[in-house]
Amino acid sequence: MSFEAAVHAKAIQLDHLVLDMCAEAGAGHPTSAMSLGHITTVLMYHTMRWVPTHPRYPSSDRLVLSEGHAVPIIYAACADLGVYFGHEDDMRPMTVEDAKTLRAIDSHIDGHPNPMEGFPFFDAATGSLGMGLSVAAGLGIAARKDGFDKQIYCIIGDGESREGQIWEAVDFIVDHKLSNVVPIFNCNQYAQSDKVSNQQSSGVTAKKLEAAGFIAEVIDGHAPEAIRAALEIAAQKGANGEPVAIVANTVKGWGSPVCQGGGWHGKPLTGEKLELAHEELDALRVQLTSSLVAGDDLKIYPPSESTAPEPAISDAPSFTGAMKAYDMASVLSTGKLSTRKAFGLALRALGHVNSSVFALDADVKNSTFTQWFGDDKDLEDRMVECKIAEQNMISVAAGLSSAGKVPFAATFSKFVTRAYDQIELAINSGANLKVVGSHSGVGAASDGPSQMSLPDIAWFRSLSSAKDHRGNPACYVLQPADAFAAYGLTQVMADYQGMCYMRTCRPDVEFLYDDSTVFNLGGFEVLTSGRDLMIVSAGYMLHECNKALEALDKAGIDATLIDMYSLPFDSDGILDIANDNGGMILTVEDNYGGGLGSAVADAVTGSGDGFTIEQMHVGRIPKSARTVDDELAYLNLTAKDIAKCAAGMLGVAAV
Amino acid sequence: MSFEAAVHAKAIQLDHLVLDMCAEAGAGHPTSAMSLGHITTVLMYHTMRWVPTHPRYPSSDRLVLSEGHAVPIIYAACADLGVYFGHEDDMRPMTVEDAKTLRAIDSHIDGHPNPMEGFPFFDAATGSLGMGLSVAAGLGIAARKDGFDKQIYCIIGDGESREGQIWEAVDFIVDHKLSNVVPIFNCNQYAQSDKVSNQQSSGVTAKKLEAAGFIAEVIDGHAPEAIRAALEIAAQKGANGEPVAIVANTVKGWGSPVCQGGGWHGKPLTGEKLELAHEELDALRVQLTSSLVAGDDLKIYPPSESTAPEPAISDAPSFTGAMKAYDMASVLSTGKLSTRKAFGLALRALGHVNSSVFALDADVKNSTFTQWFGDDKDLEDRMVECKIAEQNMISVAAGLSSAGKVPFAATFSKFVTRAYDQIELAINSGANLKVVGSHSGVGAASDGPSQMSLPDIAWFRSLSSAKDHRGNPACYVLQPADAFAAYGLTQVMADYQGMCYMRTCRPDVEFLYDDSTVFNLGGFEVLTSGRDLMIVSAGYMLHECNKALEALDKAGIDATLIDMYSLPFDSDGILDIANDNGGMILTVEDNYGGGLGSAVADAVTGSGDGFTIEQMHVGRIPKSARTVDDELAYLNLTAKDIAKCAAGMLGVAAV
Repeated sequence: MSFEAAVHAKAIQLDHLVLDMCAEAGAGHPTSAMSLGHITTVLMYHTMRWVPTHPRYPSSDRLVLSEGHAVPIIYAACADLGVYFGHEDDMRPMTVEDAKTLRAIDSHIDGHPNPMEGFPFFDAATGSLGMGLSVAAGLGIAARKDGFDKQIYCIIGDGESREGQIWEAVDFIVDHKLSNVVPIFNCNQYAQSDKVSNQQSSGVTAKKLEAAGFIAEVIDGHAPEAIRAALEIAAQKGANGEPVAIVANTVKGWGSPVCQGGGWHGKPLTGEKLELAHEELDALRVQLTSSLVAGDDLKIYPPSESTAPEPAISDAPSFTGAMKAYDMASVLSTGKLSTRKAFGLALRALGHVNSSVFALDADVKNSTFTQWFGDDKDLEDRMVECKIAEQNMISVAAGLSSAGKVPFAATFSKFVTRAYDQIELAINSGANLKVVGSHSGVGAASDGPSQMSLPDIAWFRSLSSAKDHRGNPACYVLQPADAFAAYGLTQVMADYQGMCYMRTCRPDVEFLYDDSTVFNLGGFEVLTSGRDLMIVSAGYMLHECNKALEALDKAGIDATLIDMYSLPFDSDGILDIANDNGGMILTVEDNYGGGLGSAVADAVTGSGDGFTIEQMHVGRIPKSARTVDDELAYLNLTAKDIAKCAAGMLGVAAV
Repeated sequence: MSFEAAVHAKAIQLDHLVLDMCAEAGAGHPTSAMSLGHITTVLMYHTMRWVPTHPRYPSSDRLVLSEGHAVPIIYAACADLGVYFGHEDDMRPMTVEDAKTLRAIDSHIDGHPNPMEGFPFFDAATGSLGMGLSVAAGLGIAARKDGFDKQIYCIIGDGESREGQIWEAVDFIVDHKLSNVVPIFNCNQYAQSDKVSNQQSSGVTAKKLEAAGFIAEVIDGHAPEAIRAALEIAAQKGANGEPVAIVANTVKGWGSPVCQGGGWHGKPLTGEKLELAHEELDALRVQLTSSLVAGDDLKIYPPSESTAPEPAISDAPSFTGAMKAYDMASVLSTGKLSTRKAFGLALRALGHVNSSVFALDADVKNSTFTQWFGDDKDLEDRMVECKIAEQNMISVAAGLSSAGKVPFAATFSKFVTRAYDQIELAINSGANLKVVGSHSGVGAASDGPSQMSLPDIAWFRSLSSAKDHRGNPACYVLQPADAFAAYGLTQVMADYQGMCYMRTCRPDVEFLYDDSTVFNLGGFEVLTSGRDLMIVSAGYMLHECNKALEALDKAGIDATLIDMYSLPFDSDGILDIANDNGGMILTVEDNYGGGLGSAVADAVTGSGDGFTIEQMHVGRIPKSARTVDDELAYLNLTAKDIAKCAAGMLGVAAV
């Protein structure tokens, strides 16, 4: 009985602290946290192999708290254990006093888990629900690749498990035989506004898990021996390749009837209720720990000593070098290649010179051309097929990133939208994520607007306007206009530590650059230098602009053409060129507004100088067209439209 | 055997046409379509009660094609049946020649289903996968409310069913006992780039459905009698409140071995292969229809005659009227109320005067205050609790809209992100969708960035830059600054036919307006009229600006303050005011860049006049803070920061 009593004692001790932390913060979710007191205790004080003074020790077991709002229970345990926390250059053991800084502006312990604020115990930020199991799966893939015999535990709320992404992750875990990932469903029966649906009850959840191929262990989540036994089963079966999930029946506000039942989600207890809750816990402690004797300590064992394999990194070949190396010399000689194919080539070349690079795809690898990575025998074990489940793909990539990998996740740009919430949380986590969307803009003409990325530049640009925890733009938005640019920017993305979104296109396009062109984050290229008007574009539309330039030239208009392949960009440089062009600016993009045009408007309106900007963008909902040209005509975005608009700005009637 | 033979004959006839349509288009997914030949035939020529000349007849059964890329088979059937199509004022029977215009720029039949291009048979656009079953569920809810005894069939691809949203919809259907919705899983085993996972096999899919509470009928999807029998079971069991799903084993490219197996996704057949496919189908026809005799026609039965109940609409009370009517007079007298609560009040008042208004929430009704609608006994049957599954919620709302309802879907603004892809497709569908996000900006300070909406304004603004099919902005973005505005704008949203996004905030804020203020889409309000500088803000930040104005006033700066509660807005009006303020503009917002500030920059840079714009926005990833003021200070967005920036623009050192 001593283990039982010891776990009860510790769980109650942590619950006390949880109540005080939330009272101090004036916020938080103490009752959700208390439903996890015993599970947290068995995990963190007994089952997990880890090192509190080195929470990111590579071979340690990991804990992903998908229901992030329950985090006070983890903080309480970390405070009790003196887990090292703080920013990298200023780590120290956490104390109970530290725990009481919960949610304060100068505290390392945020309202929801966030490693980047100085709590490295966590691999990823959580809080927007349903993402954690995918992150755990990403960690599981990395652990297997690195040869670490470790377990990744993931705690999921019952209400949270309504999120479809949880079930995407479940399928993914079965597909990839990730039996080192152990989902633990915390079935405390109450969500925020009401009881959870019967669909999220422990019984139905267990049936769903079994249907999906898991062994489901349904237990009392406040029974120490049951928890320990279930975790042992998970380890044993897992070692045999059988995935096990634990479905725990728990009590929200366990130990303190005063805060049980409905109406207690996300509410700290104060005053008399807080006192009563403490008293109730004390009374339970007496009852449940009577068998406790001296020496009944819970003991944490470290993992086996093991170091992560050093990443092997060398220089990638040039674009033309790679084309020749991969039997594409004849294509090279055509002078044309789509940016999506150039990305696929670059990824393959990168895979060979950087052992950390992983490719992820969502059943469109033959469209994004990650298949050139996956079909390479030397790289296939770093190709992660995620099937048609983009949310899971992005969070898996975040997990891979946390384990030190460089994940490139690709699908159609349009379908990246499906995972915007996941991308934002990955950015908050500091993830080194590279997202590559193909079929960008209106190039998927024939398929119609359900396959076109239209507000994507605006969204990613918005992220790029904020600084991340390293002081860099929270996102770089990259739009290569030709194969050299796509190839070069793929390498730039791999070298950079942080989030990048690259937009590739479907059609083959002519080369604009050569191997000597250097592409930089924040850079742009002057393709044609003129003096009457500055045209700024990117990606596919640059080729339309180039055609427009010919017409303008015939009309005696000497236009400048800028390839703005990066957002953000060097504003001062653009300002100078705009001034050299009489302050006349035309922006051209194949997406809805708020993208490149707005970026230029933002850049030049700080100066107080007078500029005239015309923005050409997709101004109506597109429809299917059999050719890209038909689509551009429908949207008034052809080379002719561009030339006409440019000429109009200068008062020239016809071009 | 005559039914069997007749279905085979028809399915083969449609398959022939599918092959030709895709060949003509040079694109499309003939093999996916052919896997649905028999199911489509039994549904559209036999089981469904509908009227081909009146595809939107209210009491008709409906068909939602979630795997939108398989649409040629539906077009083929509609061409054969002479289904009425075209835009509302120009409807006519579809012909086989019309079918061959597939994907052309001037065709009504897009590459993926889209009612707004002139194909009213469909209730909603599909094509981004996983959304259709939720749309069907919304139609199911509306049908039940309207007293229509109709079935809503939804065809889902096997690969598609990897999308978590499908399983959100499954749970939702069980929760809401929507046995009038019949999901049909098309298990043809091949996705785009590879075979589908075993997790999406018919066997595992059936098990998952059963675990979730469905009866799963696994059938041969090319056996006419089996299809008919399964649909009859679905109708019978459904009538008893038991949800039935059909899991059909099918063959991708059925009938034409030349295009079966891998590598045939999304590829039209041409030349010899096309000829061979036709020959193979012909041979099968001979084999399968030998028992066919004259008179073996498939017969379509119409639905029972029934009209939708006329919506009852009258005028809503004023804000103060509603406050008094709902026992909130004492709150009114405090002069403060949060915009989220004012929205809840408005929704409740609206519910009483507009019988079409529905409220949807994702387990945060006590945060968004849709609970004031749901807790009202007169309205509770129009409150749709969707639990923690935002994607499903938005697509359910799209379905409700298609049935003529006015759905208001609410959750935290941050969690709306989860459903951006669904929102965009709903807009493409012409849905009359109202999305209301609470806890907007950084007001959820204590919870940290996982609960804050930061790039949301940029994204919705991008949508607002394009015209929808009615010629209106594809989205209006609304940010009420006080309770009067939130109340008024909620009514404006209900009156408008189209997509709106309203952003409410958590904290109580002082009233700025009164019952006499009229709020308009596209409007703004001049809160203070000055001449030195124009400050433009919205929502919560307007109150910080108001405080800043006091400090500026003391420093002798006479600033204008604009409440830009709508995007897009009246550009000319703003331009005039900016000119009256010396061209000096300061924008202030509680989100990342690309929002209000960029909107103003876009508006004033068309003129060529010189303006100086400083944009204050969230410039770094936020963290938890115990108070909103702490958060704003962390982000340099306090009233003091605003005053300092404004003064700096005018060369005034200290304020």
